Amino acid sequence: MNTGDLPSRVAIQEEGPREGFQSEPPVALADKLRFIDALAQTGLPQINCVSFVDPARVPQMADAEEVAQRLVRRPGVRYTGIWLNGKGFERALASGLDLLPNVVASASSTFSMKNNGCSGAALIERQGPMLERYRQAGLSLDAAHVFTAFGCHYEGDIAPEKAIATLAALLGLCAGHGIAPRTVYLCDTVGAAHPLQVQRLLGMARSRWPQQEFALHLHDTRGMGLANALAGLQMGVARFDASVGGLGGCPFAGNAAAAGNICTEDLALMCEEMGIDTGLDLDALADCGRLAESIVGHSLPGKFKNAGGLRRDRRIPTA
Amino acid sequence: MNTGDLPSRVAIQEEGPREGFQSEPPVALADKLRFIDALAQTGLPQINCVSFVDPARVPQMADAEEVAQRLVRRPGVRYTGIWLNGKGFERALASGLDLLPNVVASASSTFSMKNNGCSGAALIERQGPMLERYRQAGLSLDAAHVFTAFGCHYEGDIAPEKAIATLAALLGLCAGHGIAPRTVYLCDTVGAAHPLQVQRLLGMARSRWPQQEFALHLHDTRGMGLANALAGLQMGVARFDASVGGLGGCPFAGNAAAAGNICTEDLALMCEEMGIDTGLDLDALADCGRLAESIVGHSLPGKFKNAGGLRRDRRIPTA
Repeated sequence: MNTGDLPSRVAIQEEGPREGFQSEPPVALADKLRFIDALAQTGLPQINCVSFVDPARVPQMADAEEVAQRLVRRPGVRYTGIWLNGKGFERALASGLDLLPNVVASASSTFSMKNNGCSGAALIERQGPMLERYRQAGLSLDAAHVFTAFGCHYEGDIAPEKAIATLAALLGLCAGHGIAPRTVYLCDTVGAAHPLQVQRLLGMARSRWPQQEFALHLHDTRGMGLANALAGLQMGVARFDASVGGLGGCPFAGNAAAAGNICTEDLALMCEEMGIDTGLDLDALADCGRLAESIVGHSLPGKFKNAGGLRRDRRIPTA
Repeated sequence: MNTGDLPSRVAIQEEGPREGFQSEPPVALADKLRFIDALAQTGLPQINCVSFVDPARVPQMADAEEVAQRLVRRPGVRYTGIWLNGKGFERALASGLDLLPNVVASASSTFSMKNNGCSGAALIERQGPMLERYRQAGLSLDAAHVFTAFGCHYEGDIAPEKAIATLAALLGLCAGHGIAPRTVYLCDTVGAAHPLQVQRLLGMARSRWPQQEFALHLHDTRGMGLANALAGLQMGVARFDASVGGLGGCPFAGNAAAAGNICTEDLALMCEEMGIDTGLDLDALADCGRLAESIVGHSLPGKFKNAGGLRRDRRIPTA
C-alpha cells in the first residue's frame, strides 16, 4: 500500500435522501425532513436532498420544492439537489437550495441511451447550453460527472481508456466555454468496478490532469465498495459520495441494479481507523442509518450501525 | 497500490459448514451433507466441515462424526475439521477426515480466558502436548493460528507489536520441538481490523519471518472485510478463509459478535476481476450461497449471489 498518497482528511457527501429514497417507494415529507435534519447534525458537509426531475417519471421526488422550502437550515451544511436538464435547473434555482452546477457524460453510450435518452456524444453536446445557463446565473461549475466510468450492465467492463476519452471530451467542452469543474466525479454507477480498475483509471486521470481534483461515486452492488474506496484513498482521492446505512438498494427486491451507494458510516469508520479525518460523528451517523431503516421499513446493508465500534460492543465473540 | 506484491493465484478455503453453521441453530445432517457436496463441486481446495468439540457446549456440531463418515469424497478436495484439545484431536483422527494439525495462540489474553478458559500464555503452553501428539501420529504441522491478532471486544485494538510477540512465542514453542507450521493464520476473529493495520502487521511479520507463508482469516463485522482482504493481497497474502454467502452471522440477531467470515464468492469475484486466479466456479459458488440461505432460512450478506456479474445481469440500472 502506498500510504504516501493517503489523504489526511476526506469529505464524505450524503446521497441518502436523494439517491437512496429515489429507489424506495415514496417517503412521506415529514420523514424526509426528519431524516435530513438528523443527517445535518452528524458533521456531514453536504446533503443531497432531492432531484428536480419529472414527477410523473420519479414520483418519489414529486415533493422536491416542498422539501427544499421546509428543511431546517443548519450552519456549515450544504443542502443540494440534482437536475438533468435546463427545466430541472430552473426549478433548483427557484428552490433556494445550495446550487452545485454540474455537467455529465457517460462512458457507456448504451447506458446514456437508456438513462438519458441520447447517445454518449449527444449527452456531452447537451452540456453546452447548461454551461451557458450557469454562466448567465453567475454560477461557477462545481462538478463534472462521468457515469458508468467502470462498467455497465449493457456494455460490461469499460476500459480506462474509454472513460478517459469520455472525460476528455467533457472537459474539452468545458474548456471551450472557458470554464473548468472544481471536481471530477468518476461514477461507478451500477457497482461494476474492482480495485485495480479504480487504481488504473485514477492513475491515468491524474497523469493527464495533475491539477484536477477527482472524487469517487461508488455503489456496493458486488461487495467491493469499501475495497474500491480503499483503492481510491491510496490514489489520493479525498471526496466520496455515500449514503447512510447503504440506503439505495432494497435487498428484498432481488434487483441488483438498485444496489445502494457505499455506506456513509462504514466508509467513515474505515477512514477514521486509518487515521484519516472525516469530521463526522460515527454514532450519530449510525443513528441515522437506523432511522433510515425505520423509515423505509426494512434492514439496510451497512454494518457499523449493527456492530458498533470495538469499545461500544462488549458482547462475547465467537471463535 | 503496490501491484508487484499481488499474488497471481489465491487459495480460498471454505469455512461455511463449520464456522458458519456453528453460529446458526442446528442444521440437519442431510442438509450439511448436501451443502458440503455442493461446495466440493466449485473448485474449492479445502472445506472445513465440522468441529470436534463438546456437543453439550456446541450442539450444532454434535453430529461431527456422522458428517465425516457420510460425506461424499470428491477428488482434489480436502475435507477438514477443527479441534481445541487432545480429546478433540483423537476424535478427528478416528473420523477419517483430512487432518491439518495446528497450534493456536491469542493476542488478547482476555479473549483467551473467555474463549479457551486460560490466559494467553497458558494457551501457548498447552500447545506443547499437542505438538507431541501430532509427532506421535506422524503428522506434520499445517498451521499456527493467532486469534484476535487485530483486536477484540474486551481489549479493543491490538497493537501489531503485541500480535507479533504472541506469534513469536508460539513459533518459539514450535521451534523448541524442532517443528514449524506450513502457514501462519493471522485471524481477525471478531472483525476488528482495518486495512492499514493489516498492512502494518503483515509488514512486520514478513520482515521478521521472510520465509513464512501468511494467511488471513477475516470477518466482515464492520464492512471492511474485502478492503482488509485487498490490503492482504497487496502484502502478498495468497491464502484466505471465507464462507459462502458470508455465512456465519445472523443479521436478525443483532449480534455483532456473530458476524460472518468474508464471503467466499465476493472475495473470489474481486480476485478474478483483478486477474488473480482462484480456480473457482463463481456461479456454482453463488448457487451454494443461495443453498446456504435456504438451509438457514434467512438471507445472507454476500452480494455476488444477488447481483451477478456484469454479463449475467442485464437489468436496467438506476442512475
